[in-house]
Amino acid sequence: MKAAYYVSEGHFEVKNDAVAAVPAADEVLLKVAYCGICGTDMHIFHGKMDKRVNPPQVIGHEASAVVAAVGSGVTRFAPGDRVVIRPLDWCGDCPACNTGLSHICMNLKFMGIDSIGAFQEYWAVKERTLYKVPAGLSLKEAALIEPVAVACHDVRISELKAGEFALVMGGGPIGLLIAMVAKAAGARVVISEINPYRIDFARKCGFEVVNPQECDMVETINGMTGGAGADVLFEVTASEPGAAIMTEVVRTRGRIVAVGIYSKPVPVNMHKFFWRELRLFGARLYEAEDFDTALRISAEGKLPLSKLITGVFDLDDIEAGFRSMVGNATAIKTLIKCSDEE
Amino acid sequence: MKAAYYVSEGHFEVKNDAVAAVPAADEVLLKVAYCGICGTDMHIFHGKMDKRVNPPQVIGHEASAVVAAVGSGVTRFAPGDRVVIRPLDWCGDCPACNTGLSHICMNLKFMGIDSIGAFQEYWAVKERTLYKVPAGLSLKEAALIEPVAVACHDVRISELKAGEFALVMGGGPIGLLIAMVAKAAGARVVISEINPYRIDFARKCGFEVVNPQECDMVETINGMTGGAGADVLFEVTASEPGAAIMTEVVRTRGRIVAVGIYSKPVPVNMHKFFWRELRLFGARLYEAEDFDTALRISAEGKLPLSKLITGVFDLDDIEAGFRSMVGNATAIKTLIKCSDEE
Repeated sequence: MKAAYYVSEGHFEVKNDAVAAVPAADEVLLKVAYCGICGTDMHIFHGKMDKRVNPPQVIGHEASAVVAAVGSGVTRFAPGDRVVIRPLDWCGDCPACNTGLSHICMNLKFMGIDSIGAFQEYWAVKERTLYKVPAGLSLKEAALIEPVAVACHDVRISELKAGEFALVMGGGPIGLLIAMVAKAAGARVVISEINPYRIDFARKCGFEVVNPQECDMVETINGMTGGAGADVLFEVTASEPGAAIMTEVVRTRGRIVAVGIYSKPVPVNMHKFFWRELRLFGARLYEAEDFDTALRISAEGKLPLSKLITGVFDLDDIEAGFRSMVGNATAIKTLIKCSDEE
Repeated sequence: MKAAYYVSEGHFEVKNDAVAAVPAADEVLLKVAYCGICGTDMHIFHGKMDKRVNPPQVIGHEASAVVAAVGSGVTRFAPGDRVVIRPLDWCGDCPACNTGLSHICMNLKFMGIDSIGAFQEYWAVKERTLYKVPAGLSLKEAALIEPVAVACHDVRISELKAGEFALVMGGGPIGLLIAMVAKAAGARVVISEINPYRIDFARKCGFEVVNPQECDMVETINGMTGGAGADVLFEVTASEPGAAIMTEVVRTRGRIVAVGIYSKPVPVNMHKFFWRELRLFGARLYEAEDFDTALRISAEGKLPLSKLITGVFDLDDIEAGFRSMVGNATAIKTLIKCSDEE
């Protein structure tokens, strides 16, 4: 079978590996259909995570697949089932796992980063990572379920209610998905973005967009909310300006969700947290129920997922697929077609 | 009647004013018993809030009192009732008030700062600000109910449960009260403090104390919690080191309560909020139920309030009372005796 190995900064090598004939007892052998390229994959491609991924390594974790074979202990899946993967390998015995937070296990191995991933024809994974794809959702769309589950987790953590005003700071792939999930939940959603291509794309997706470089954000959001401020803010920019604005545009006891991955501590207005009893909720990855929600609302057609797929490359052309994303704000989600499964 | 006016930095003037013979319809005329000196009062005394208080001004807001007379519309109080005051004057018609958060009304007037206060023999206040003092609680102890209610609010906002581990960063008056209320709620409480007098005092109150200048806080708190970190952290220091440590010593999805009043934005580890799904809850002042809780647990004898009263001065000596607090870490709570009510 074909398997794409990330070998060094900017380079993949596609090799022919043997297929594991029999998966282990608790494993399912998948024939991978599509696997999306995530921001983290781009970091790996840029050579910034070599210590963690230890190349040569098969990466990739936003996958849809068809079950090819099941291990002797597998009870919930059978060959032919269409599935998506929650790519988490938790220890089951740390303070996080012991308090029901195995998705952010203190010894978490993230499949496709800390262990072998999905950019290959066949992939053996633990049964506990799999979720069935409902009828009505294509395998191409299903490859977006992993980032949709991120958005579902963020929205759930925010405690967003129908009718509330949500401001999404940052209109990249995750910001857009959060905006879509929040809209599907009945919120009024505004996206804040500075990149003209992303502004354009978000507007084409039907969203109100504000550009903090062209308006006074406090005035603008107050104007939209009768002076109250946003009920919920998703901070997806991981930028110093994002952290500076977030406390100024939410309402009394408003909720801010920390989604973006900051590389260093940034100034935060702790006084405003005190003064207006603001709340900040960190949100990382997804729990099982977020995959359930992501699959359900996607199958119900509530999210325009196919609009987000702006490129598809064959596994043989994976390097070109990654290259097409570099510095390209018009690329929202690029998929790698990993086998002949459609 | 006697009334103490703050006139300028470092100075009070005690005058003889006329007593309002008949309070307005919705008002209660109080004979003030005791009124504590708060950190904010010290800021006023140091001349740092002259623009806001507009001297000469009677300040003071941590008061216990006896009802002297009631307005025609007052139904819940009668002369002779012993009361404490929740010193908030909210507008009733802003986005905060309209969502049930009148305690942090966007147009809030804080009695004793933005309007006339309690450092006088008689004080007319709105009925809605008053709470009856239960039997078994002296008027001297009752003067501590206002800061106890702050602590009750902070602990309630933290969602602290019995058996949890709470770290209180800062062992001043509010930190100590939070520690006492958290302990009364069944938590294991550790105080972090650097001042040797405050460390000593907190230990005498029965608390475990750690000194971040003499230990590695991460190691210490991990050692105390089996590597998990604190369930709840109260950030009362309003310091840059406090903001730096807070994210490093709480458990996965641990709760941090922002209590301290920061004077400027400080670096915060947003990445850690994301990575461990930490939560930050701002907490300011108190709601009605926090006064109820403060009165109930104080009357039940669950808090060693009298230990905290380290000085009492007559109204005539109010300036000396304030001076005794300057740079004095051994002074926890100083009361001003405002009349002959005991």
